[in-house]
Amino acid sequence: MRLRLTPRDTSYFDLFAASAAHLVTGANLLAEMLGADRAARKELNKRMGEAEHAADDATHTIMRRLNKTFVTPFDRDDIYNLASYLDDCMDHMDEASDLIVLYKVDELPARVSDQVQVLQRAAELTAEAMPRLRSMDSLQEYWVEVNRLENQADKSHRKLLAQMFDEIADPILLMKLKEIVEKLEDAADAFEKVANTVETIALKES
Amino acid sequence: MRLRLTPRDTSYFDLFAASAAHLVTGANLLAEMLGADRAARKELNKRMGEAEHAADDATHTIMRRLNKTFVTPFDRDDIYNLASYLDDCMDHMDEASDLIVLYKVDELPARVSDQVQVLQRAAELTAEAMPRLRSMDSLQEYWVEVNRLENQADKSHRKLLAQMFDEIADPILLMKLKEIVEKLEDAADAFEKVANTVETIALKES
Amino acid sequence: MRLRLTPRDTSYFDLFAASAAHLVTGANLLAEMLGADRAARKELNKRMGEAEHAADDATHTIMRRLNKTFVTPFDRDDIYNLASYLDDCMDHMDEASDLIVLYKVDELPARVSDQVQVLQRAAELTAEAMPRLRSMDSLQEYWVEVNRLENQADKSHRKLLAQMFDEIADPILLMKLKEIVEKLEDAADAFEKVANTVETIALKES
Repeated sequence: MRLRLTPRDTSYFDLFAASAAHLVTGANLLAEMLGADRAARKELNKRMGEAEHAADDATHTIMRRLNKTFVTPFDRDDIYNLASYLDDCMDHMDEASDLIVLYKVDELPARVSDQVQVLQRAAELTAEAMPRLRSMDSLQEYWVEVNRLENQADKSHRKLLAQMFDEIADPILLMKLKEIVEKLEDAADAFEKVANTVETIALKES
Repeated sequence: MRLRLTPRDTSYFDLFAASAAHLVTGANLLAEMLGADRAARKELNKRMGEAEHAADDATHTIMRRLNKTFVTPFDRDDIYNLASYLDDCMDHMDEASDLIVLYKVDELPARVSDQVQVLQRAAELTAEAMPRLRSMDSLQEYWVEVNRLENQADKSHRKLLAQMFDEIADPILLMKLKEIVEKLEDAADAFEKVANTVETIALKES
Repeated sequence: MRLRLTPRDTSYFDLFAASAAHLVTGANLLAEMLGADRAARKELNKRMGEAEHAADDATHTIMRRLNKTFVTPFDRDDIYNLASYLDDCMDHMDEASDLIVLYKVDELPARVSDQVQVLQRAAELTAEAMPRLRSMDSLQEYWVEVNRLENQADKSHRKLLAQMFDEIADPILLMKLKEIVEKLEDAADAFEKVANTVETIALKES
């Protein structure tokens, strides 16, 4: 009965899953970049741009559907936030990738790979969680783990900043590296916002 | 009948048009600043501050009305976002203007005028589009063009950043210029958000 | 009758008051830090972290309740915004505190204490105002005063920036101090957003 009265547009779940899949691609491209030389980084950055473009299309599809649909599987605002934060994850990873190429930074501090590994793990967890929004099945372990990862990322980000300011004497190199590591930190924050939005949705459904 | 049942508070359209008109003033003041000397810049910055103040009043009028009105011409959230993003455009242009004076930057890179020209064009398009919200007439060409302009601004912003880091050896001058060009980029982003909100409104109305 | 039909969950007022109380603690810890040596600052920063954690719990309690409650004392969005902006105030003060320790900045410019005094005053006013949300009693003087304080903070922030760029020759020290004073400015902005949200609520209730 309830279903007949409020048919739920389930395709949102597929759209969120597709959007999150691009984040896995993006995080893996970042990981590849760290070990690559300038020429390879340019190529990887190009592919990152394509992933960002694909994620952008996914977001627009969700937003367009949201503006056209009367009945949604959960609160419009939560769908909007989920799509926006997924988009932010990709944008910040793409910005970091652009800056690595733009600033011609050859050596990145070792701790940057810790940051990127956190992003890879957060992206995988997010991609695995999105399809579970349909059944609301075991989502808590996802948002708890992503919050844990973000706290870890935050700590290593602070350690990295302190280390950079202690060890790097060239202020211009410091400016470049600081901006890159901050974009990576912004991406980790965005993954946490995705997880917090999922928590909000789950709480309302329970 | 429908009109009698849901009288639409049309004055929002006039308020948005007024708000956008201040953006044209602001963008033109920025353009004047680029060629001006320090004394003239101080005076132009004072006028920018007045334009920002007027835009602020327009925003508050919209917000106050929104909190007092039961029936609105379109979704409350969209009206709220439109007013906020128009306000952001002005704030970022005002911040850039303040920094140019505050940091006593005499020479600005040539590409900065490309950024400002984009802001002037985006402001004109926005001011022309706002009154068309009433009829929802030919708004698509507006949001498509503003998105195109923002992509162009983004590309020239990256080129400018790379050039600055290649050519400017003085880290403090680099910090100053970087902050100024980023405020201009923030303004271009805000114009895009205005356009995206108009697209959202048009999609819901269609 | 109306009360029976729409029982209002008054406990939000207590939660907002608790959340604002942590801001007073945080602002006072910042003030203590300015005069302290490195060892004392580390200890004060630890206590700031605890205050931030307590504020975080308060925010989560509000959000959880919001997602579980059908009838709220005022608009859900306003409750959400109020909780979020109170949280931002604390986060920015905590970030400033972290950076002071992280960057091992011994001497802070004198004007920084002006910024912190504004934060202390804004925190006190906010903590006093939150309980008055229940009765909507004399809230206008609160939001007017906080807006006045934020404008004052903004002016002194600009003066401080100009002074720092004039007087500090070491670009790396300049980067450190700039980031710290900007976090303090962000905190002042967040207090203004809290006040503006209270104004919005009061306007809707009136």
